[in-house]
Amino acid sequence: MNQPSAIERAGQAPARPQVVILGAGFGGLSAATALRHAAVDITLIDRRNYHLFQPLLYQVATAGLSPAQIASPIRRIVAPQKNITVFMDKIIAIDKTAGEVVTSTRRIHFDYLIVATGARHAYFGHDQWEEFAPGLKKIEDATEIRRRILLAFEQAEATTDENERRRLQTFVVVGGGPTGVEMAGAIAELAHRTILRDFRHINPAETKIILVEAGGRVLPAFPEKLSLSAAKQLGRLGVTVMTDAPVTDCHQDGITLQDGRRIETATIIWAAGVMASPAGKWLNAQCDKAGRVIVDAALRLPGFDNIFVIGDTAAVTDGNGVVAPGIAPAAKQMGYFAAASILADIKGKPREKFRYRNYGNLATIGRSSAVADFGRFTLSGFPAWVIWCFAHIWFLIGFRNRLIVFLDWIVAYVSFERGARLITGDEN
Amino acid sequence: MNQPSAIERAGQAPARPQVVILGAGFGGLSAATALRHAAVDITLIDRRNYHLFQPLLYQVATAGLSPAQIASPIRRIVAPQKNITVFMDKIIAIDKTAGEVVTSTRRIHFDYLIVATGARHAYFGHDQWEEFAPGLKKIEDATEIRRRILLAFEQAEATTDENERRRLQTFVVVGGGPTGVEMAGAIAELAHRTILRDFRHINPAETKIILVEAGGRVLPAFPEKLSLSAAKQLGRLGVTVMTDAPVTDCHQDGITLQDGRRIETATIIWAAGVMASPAGKWLNAQCDKAGRVIVDAALRLPGFDNIFVIGDTAAVTDGNGVVAPGIAPAAKQMGYFAAASILADIKGKPREKFRYRNYGNLATIGRSSAVADFGRFTLSGFPAWVIWCFAHIWFLIGFRNRLIVFLDWIVAYVSFERGARLITGDEN
Repeated sequence: MNQPSAIERAGQAPARPQVVILGAGFGGLSAATALRHAAVDITLIDRRNYHLFQPLLYQVATAGLSPAQIASPIRRIVAPQKNITVFMDKIIAIDKTAGEVVTSTRRIHFDYLIVATGARHAYFGHDQWEEFAPGLKKIEDATEIRRRILLAFEQAEATTDENERRRLQTFVVVGGGPTGVEMAGAIAELAHRTILRDFRHINPAETKIILVEAGGRVLPAFPEKLSLSAAKQLGRLGVTVMTDAPVTDCHQDGITLQDGRRIETATIIWAAGVMASPAGKWLNAQCDKAGRVIVDAALRLPGFDNIFVIGDTAAVTDGNGVVAPGIAPAAKQMGYFAAASILADIKGKPREKFRYRNYGNLATIGRSSAVADFGRFTLSGFPAWVIWCFAHIWFLIGFRNRLIVFLDWIVAYVSFERGARLITGDEN
Repeated sequence: MNQPSAIERAGQAPARPQVVILGAGFGGLSAATALRHAAVDITLIDRRNYHLFQPLLYQVATAGLSPAQIASPIRRIVAPQKNITVFMDKIIAIDKTAGEVVTSTRRIHFDYLIVATGARHAYFGHDQWEEFAPGLKKIEDATEIRRRILLAFEQAEATTDENERRRLQTFVVVGGGPTGVEMAGAIAELAHRTILRDFRHINPAETKIILVEAGGRVLPAFPEKLSLSAAKQLGRLGVTVMTDAPVTDCHQDGITLQDGRRIETATIIWAAGVMASPAGKWLNAQCDKAGRVIVDAALRLPGFDNIFVIGDTAAVTDGNGVVAPGIAPAAKQMGYFAAASILADIKGKPREKFRYRNYGNLATIGRSSAVADFGRFTLSGFPAWVIWCFAHIWFLIGFRNRLIVFLDWIVAYVSFERGARLITGDEN
């Protein structure tokens, strides 16, 4: 359809600015809800039908939570907001000058465009590694990783070859950022606590979990003393932490490190880097090396007052020249800012400059283990973990999810049980 | 490996009979747990790592429950039972005379074999229909059907073609048995209640749900007055029931009926028949037309005192010459009976004859709608539905699942919400 369809035209009352938001993650949803009382028509487009609470995706990958517990239908979230139309669709291109988004089914005119399409994990020129070392960004990623982890134990129980069993009972997580630390800690708990009594031929307690970090310390975004605390807490959970250990190859039998050492493993999880969505390509814009679109301090695409790029898709410097981190709170703040800029235009007021406010940085390591950096002070261990739990449950969208996740965690905490130990998706 | 491996040999203490159970459904698990105090070594083999509570699979297919809520890891269920070893493995063949099961990884000796590998949905010579009309037996079936149902509404919202929209908002369920009735009722509730406020361009209330039954009435296994009541309750939920309407073709655009009528639809769900697992082939045994192995009144493979076939895999006649139905309670009774026969042998007592006890037959239709047949008396509507709810929650394995499912249902009942509206599995 090269012409705007009846639907779009119907939506285009002359007076009301057309706002198109690409992506219903934390950034896109925040922008959409911030415009709920505005005299605009919003079209929200996502290739998925649900908003994913990505900070808990590692819990799905380690059988702690079900996908539906961290995902809510976008339509349901915005249903009460009458000025929004939601389409599940794929972006093909963006015509900046004509002010049109081209999807797989239509062309949609915009007066304002907010690009919030997030990021994928990346292998930086080694895409052939993905087959052996899946990353964790989508629900399908999480269920695939869950399948591999659980299947490794099943195969270890079944094999009669000692070396193969040792390989199957070794798990390598590549990347010592928050996701890698969470994954390593969660696998350690699964192996050393949850499934301890479930096997007859293997001893899950003998399972090796190795966290491999190229840099000098885990959680490099945190103060050094919290990195050391995190490493200590990982050790207590039974995770072997290897720092200054860049990976030079991922293959069928395991990984190879820069110093030539090889680690034999059947299960590699990639948490070593992300690459922004193709927004840069759609916008034919300048990007940084992580593929993030470089925007000005007002989150604008240079030269386009009406195109905002936010969240993990944007490389932005706030008033202090500091790049906002690729975390949910930053994406939300950018979403609110883009909406505020549009409201300012409508009211004929001047726009403001985006300033990222750091309300603290949390990373969980495992049961009762976490670190929290609030700038003025830091926490680690149980108190940090409690704050992490409540922060995450609180921000889960929907009372229902909150209640169920909370109950699951209570049950998991008292029982060490993990409720979603399913090997699905294979064609068996 | 052609030789029994170290593991098997180690397991074979001379005095203890080796019991191999194929399948961890209701039949296999019942047999296994009934032998928990017996001086036998049990090997339980399933191609999955979980026991599936199939009676609620339709809830997963209609976004009401998550897979993990109706599935429990087999290892966890039998973990306390020290005389069981569980393998996730595939059956390749059975050597009746040598007394060995051949799996994809090993040969396992048995003194007693209990075959409980269930059934799949079947198209009776029209396998090409599966692509257009998926059936509902596995978790992957359920999430695929869920994907198709939810995607149809998304595409209906996006299309600008009236005919296409009508086709996308028409759902056909083929087969008027309990599964077909449940599916039709649940889709009607999803369309007419749950998602009512979530769309802008379509009116979900206009969604057509058509239940097509080849025979003269729905729920043919129930007394006629309950079939009539079920049809009336379906009508109240907004389901169009078509009886005496055999399907002669399923294709891309819909279905064709014997009388030549065509129904244009984008979503067909197949609930018209099942075919037993390949146990007949493995055992080289005589089967009925549904592929079920014909066993004697003691559930034995004719000529083999030590091989039992039970559940949906078996065609058995009890003392009264009545075939036990393909439902969970029947499979459980057969599992207990097979275990009791083995215990009788060990104690040197005579075996008994299997008698199927019908404790009643339940079918749910939707919110507050169900039918119950207790022989002496029958129920329908709300009272039958309450009994159905508690019966199913009660039999869900694991306190945790029970609690979560119960909460989900309470929330769903008061809010009309369905908690698992996720379109997953596609390569988007």
